[in-house]
Amino acid sequence: MKLFEENQLKIYNSLSKTKEVFTPVHKGHIGMYVCGPTVYSNVHLGNLRTFMFFDVAFRYFLHLGYKVRYVRNITDAGHLENDADEGEDRIAKKARLEEIEPMEVVQRYTVDFHDVLKKYNFLPPSIEPTATGHIVEQIEMIKDIIDKGLGYEINGSVYFDVIAYNKSNHYGILSGRKIEDAIHNTRALDGQSDKRNPQDFALWKKADERHIMRWSSPWSEGFPGWHLECSVMSSKYLGDKFDIHGGGLDLKFPHHECEIAQSKTCSGHDPVNYWMHTNMLLLNGQKMAKSTGNYILPNEILTGENKILSKAFSPSVVRFFNMQANYRSVLDFSNDALEASEKGYYKLMDAMTSLSNLSTQKSSSINISEWKHKCYAAMNDDFNTPVLISHIFEGVRFINQIKEGKASINSNDLVNFITTMNAFVYDVLGLLNDVNDQASDKIDGVVSLLIKLRKEARENKDWDLSDQIRDELLAIGIQLKDGREGTTYSIS
Amino acid sequence: MKLFEENQLKIYNSLSKTKEVFTPVHKGHIGMYVCGPTVYSNVHLGNLRTFMFFDVAFRYFLHLGYKVRYVRNITDAGHLENDADEGEDRIAKKARLEEIEPMEVVQRYTVDFHDVLKKYNFLPPSIEPTATGHIVEQIEMIKDIIDKGLGYEINGSVYFDVIAYNKSNHYGILSGRKIEDAIHNTRALDGQSDKRNPQDFALWKKADERHIMRWSSPWSEGFPGWHLECSVMSSKYLGDKFDIHGGGLDLKFPHHECEIAQSKTCSGHDPVNYWMHTNMLLLNGQKMAKSTGNYILPNEILTGENKILSKAFSPSVVRFFNMQANYRSVLDFSNDALEASEKGYYKLMDAMTSLSNLSTQKSSSINISEWKHKCYAAMNDDFNTPVLISHIFEGVRFINQIKEGKASINSNDLVNFITTMNAFVYDVLGLLNDVNDQASDKIDGVVSLLIKLRKEARENKDWDLSDQIRDELLAIGIQLKDGREGTTYSIS
Repeated sequence: MKLFEENQLKIYNSLSKTKEVFTPVHKGHIGMYVCGPTVYSNVHLGNLRTFMFFDVAFRYFLHLGYKVRYVRNITDAGHLENDADEGEDRIAKKARLEEIEPMEVVQRYTVDFHDVLKKYNFLPPSIEPTATGHIVEQIEMIKDIIDKGLGYEINGSVYFDVIAYNKSNHYGILSGRKIEDAIHNTRALDGQSDKRNPQDFALWKKADERHIMRWSSPWSEGFPGWHLECSVMSSKYLGDKFDIHGGGLDLKFPHHECEIAQSKTCSGHDPVNYWMHTNMLLLNGQKMAKSTGNYILPNEILTGENKILSKAFSPSVVRFFNMQANYRSVLDFSNDALEASEKGYYKLMDAMTSLSNLSTQKSSSINISEWKHKCYAAMNDDFNTPVLISHIFEGVRFINQIKEGKASINSNDLVNFITTMNAFVYDVLGLLNDVNDQASDKIDGVVSLLIKLRKEARENKDWDLSDQIRDELLAIGIQLKDGREGTTYSIS
Repeated sequence: MKLFEENQLKIYNSLSKTKEVFTPVHKGHIGMYVCGPTVYSNVHLGNLRTFMFFDVAFRYFLHLGYKVRYVRNITDAGHLENDADEGEDRIAKKARLEEIEPMEVVQRYTVDFHDVLKKYNFLPPSIEPTATGHIVEQIEMIKDIIDKGLGYEINGSVYFDVIAYNKSNHYGILSGRKIEDAIHNTRALDGQSDKRNPQDFALWKKADERHIMRWSSPWSEGFPGWHLECSVMSSKYLGDKFDIHGGGLDLKFPHHECEIAQSKTCSGHDPVNYWMHTNMLLLNGQKMAKSTGNYILPNEILTGENKILSKAFSPSVVRFFNMQANYRSVLDFSNDALEASEKGYYKLMDAMTSLSNLSTQKSSSINISEWKHKCYAAMNDDFNTPVLISHIFEGVRFINQIKEGKASINSNDLVNFITTMNAFVYDVLGLLNDVNDQASDKIDGVVSLLIKLRKEARENKDWDLSDQIRDELLAIGIQLKDGREGTTYSIS
């Protein structure tokens, strides 16, 4: 029996605004789509929070034995400067400013994105499709929307007719906006737009002369609207009805609202069963923004190179910090909060190191089954990682009590205990016991101490000790060399 | 003045079969296209050799001060089982066998490819375009070839008319094949093909019913021919006349031959000024092949998990091994050869560590300018890395002579010496001084030795020494804990 058969998972659905029992479209399978980055700048810590939460959800699904197809896209074209349909393409603008080809911008920030996620121990998604990789499919979907009577062409651009759609559908169903407020284009108020209604959004934009990212289409040389790619790629890889669609809260409107409208127009039904949205990450109580300088990059945390930070922190500490908050709560990032998480993380890792060396007794004084059940219950309750972590720390207390002889565990329970701790700490939360990574910083100090002790031994004419140090280091693979300017060492 | 202005680079051009002085199309700029992997299996060591050589060429161009646009593609569609135009798409076949979506195959092996290259310290190329990301552009190029009279449609597929092209062009110019031998389709001999001539190759293939990778086109739902993507993506990002096109020797025919034919048909001129091809990597004197088991993966070398290997080797050792051979020579990989490279690599890294600590004198007994000139001359002679490495080892001899007081160097020369060694060893060859990476393996042994010495000191009632060891370890950040079962330590 797979674990998912004995775990009833509940998910908070942004669409119904309630926690619902999760029932996948196909038993044992999960299709999950998460809106990925627009690769025109370095991924910031707020984005990382979103992706990290869905990484943990993905990890939990896999742990439960689901077969998961997790699609997270890369937006490499079509995302304009503002969420309205005006302004320059973000990537093309960056390319113009830096005098490079747009795809060089895409490559630079895609590489950065992947580097950051790898450092933070993310699992790669199952498929990572790009907008430019689905131009043909986007053109096909636009044709379909036009055929359905909800797309119209003006001057080489194609728009989605929100007002017509709203006659027999509810535009605003996800974000709760009223149709009269759901306006996509401020310039429309000045009468400068081609659109029939200010609520309409672009499916295809004709490229003006200076726009270098352009493709042939039946309507013009141009580029697809930003919202279209996600409808196209989610349905291509997950079908027109799939389980979970995730993203940051700021994507609810207009992006996800438009996705629903596009997809429903083509398929005739709602595309997604469970919509999930992650909340904001603040920095010292303020919204993160490049413009105000209240801002930090994931890599800066790893090097400590940001004035906000007192020191560098390991990726696992940042992961641990993130998981100490519920994904639907606002999370406030600060140096103090990170230092507190670091203490907890090291305490946990110390316990994890002790865990496999615990001695067993004939009987257990602690109830591992009950404890294990609580761990699963926390995750089954809409991925409540802070509650899970509190149970994990109950496990840490068990470990320390057993070590100190204040509690006992039998061998069956110990196997169960170790398996469960490893599953939640490493597999599900994705933490790494990277204490050893710090070892390489220490080796020089430790070998220097041995060289000093050897020097003292020689001064005391304790040749046995002096030789012992040299020989045992050599056996480890560290060779001491006595030279004119003292003793040096090499590692082989 | 940029370095490239004082270095006359010569490149062996596979097209002319001579070493030619390298003159870029645009002064100070280089456009380089290298055929990347078909992502349907793990990248093997032979592929790695090719990509590693071009990584070093890229690094040398950057070192010389060129502005380089380096394009290396990912083939994620269109590459059929054999180099003829028959059989299944390699990715679609893998997907069918594993019962997953083709783009899941693409994702798995693209992630693997990037992971391997990162471990081996590759620089990312400037642009990494995919075949599926350029379907629109490929359709446009097919239209152009049809318009030029050299493409014809039969039953929804489009073929390139090699015989017609060869009337006023030379098909076989790169590979030296005669037109009558340049046959792409064995089945054509049985009269089973749609093609006019057996030499013709596919530009677009109609997808049969079971083929799941398919796109709309003016001719059929289908997919582009493998050769087309490289013509399309090289011209899109580098222009229709660019400097360097590289790849493995096995791509000369048919792949590169077809690229020339397609591109020349559209632009009217040869697309590439310098064609470069890397030679084969053998394993114990035999061709590497999965079918015979004579075969090794880049990751297996790093873990030692292959029966061919006596132990694990670091990525820099493998890089060093590769660079000890000329890229145009056959290279034979074996455990013995790798062990020999490892010795050389450690000798070099030992010297690099000493280099920055050398003492200077008023005058130099060695000629650094002459030595430096020889290093550049080696690379300028068609990237002759083995000769460069012999000069680097002359540098190692200098370092050891200076250390031992048998040679002297003045401070200006030392700066020049350090700069040049760093440039070639780290920046150009891309080696890492990863000796420290081994440190974490050693820390446990070294701390255990100190714990043992402390235990002995306590047994001898030498409390001063015992306390010294404990306190100095604590100062480094290693805390000893005396428990019932002996002394343990934790690192903070």
